[in-house]
Amino acid sequence: MTQRITVVEKILSANDRLAEENRTRLDSNKVFSLNLMASPGAGKTSLIERTVKGLSDQLRLAVIDGDIATSLDADRAAAAGATAVQINTGGECHLDAVMLQNALINLDLSNFDLLIVENVGNLVCPISFQLGTHQNILIASIPGGDDKPYKYPAMYQGVDVILINKIDLLPYVNFNMDYFLRGVEILNPGVISFPISCRTGEGLDAWLDWVVQKVLACRV
Amino acid sequence: MTQRITVVEKILSANDRLAEENRTRLDSNKVFSLNLMASPGAGKTSLIERTVKGLSDQLRLAVIDGDIATSLDADRAAAAGATAVQINTGGECHLDAVMLQNALINLDLSNFDLLIVENVGNLVCPISFQLGTHQNILIASIPGGDDKPYKYPAMYQGVDVILINKIDLLPYVNFNMDYFLRGVEILNPGVISFPISCRTGEGLDAWLDWVVQKVLACRV
Repeated sequence: MTQRITVVEKILSANDRLAEENRTRLDSNKVFSLNLMASPGAGKTSLIERTVKGLSDQLRLAVIDGDIATSLDADRAAAAGATAVQINTGGECHLDAVMLQNALINLDLSNFDLLIVENVGNLVCPISFQLGTHQNILIASIPGGDDKPYKYPAMYQGVDVILINKIDLLPYVNFNMDYFLRGVEILNPGVISFPISCRTGEGLDAWLDWVVQKVLACRV
Repeated sequence: MTQRITVVEKILSANDRLAEENRTRLDSNKVFSLNLMASPGAGKTSLIERTVKGLSDQLRLAVIDGDIATSLDADRAAAAGATAVQINTGGECHLDAVMLQNALINLDLSNFDLLIVENVGNLVCPISFQLGTHQNILIASIPGGDDKPYKYPAMYQGVDVILINKIDLLPYVNFNMDYFLRGVEILNPGVISFPISCRTGEGLDAWLDWVVQKVLACRV
């Protein structure tokens, strides 16, 4: 057991070093970057589509999509108007800093203002592997249930922003928003959250404003 | 890289040996067992509640709940009327055969007909670790999206039954059932599937009948 812990620690420490290199590269090109995490089906790709369509007249956007097997998500990001790069993880359940580093080689960062990295759909592993991006973003979803902060505390503790997606489904499912937000507040006091619906567009303006402000601040 | 693959193979082979031991233990007690897998929030615990309530007058049920941090799911299974044992994985994103072996110590298997094991919410890792249970069950969910077979092929290939949950939400989301089922059929031809709603109860009778038939066959 001790040996296993040592190996895991070494992997994480190597990952952190590479994450720092990624951050330096992004900073030197004044590219603001997001690591988008969520359960499968919470709406990561839909949010990327909405964000690309909403901001492509103001910002130059790149998307890096982590997926186990397909390029479906990168195809959707490209169709929405972003420059998209696919990472096929070959079965790995999370991205790590070296995967991002290899993907960044395919982008001339001087051409972009905003990079969105779509992690593998998973509420457990991705939060343990920092990528070097500026902000960790979690998409929760209404049909996913109000107990998720309590059940996946490391994820809820480790993010900078929580998007609460599919609020258009609130009338049709049992979801106690107070219970959900209480869990969030215990784990991550004061974290920024945006209730949204990628389907109807509700709440997305506030999210897009936040992104633009962050990109502008990154340029200074 | 070679060294890493060797280590992973050794872990899997040790896991498979322990899974066989678990199966022998279940078989010798004539306990039929299910390994329930799904994305977070697809409805694993709701299905367990429905199954326990629907069958507890005919069958003696035990539930083993794998969770990262809480006993919320085991509490719900116990409240529904099952004997429930909690496994806290301490951050691991899947159950494995040794975790199940340790949990089985807490159950006198001669007292049960059916064991349901609720895996950690994750569409990637759980399918790589056989537990020794008789059938692998996947819960897909309508709001989780119709592209999931294509994006998580190992999971869709590795299961014996697919429950398609939250069909009551079909009118409110974009979900192309033909596209979903085409992906399922490519990956896992002829796999048994049940469209259900744990919220409204629709379709659950067919699922419960299937479980009962399997339990009866296991007793012969």
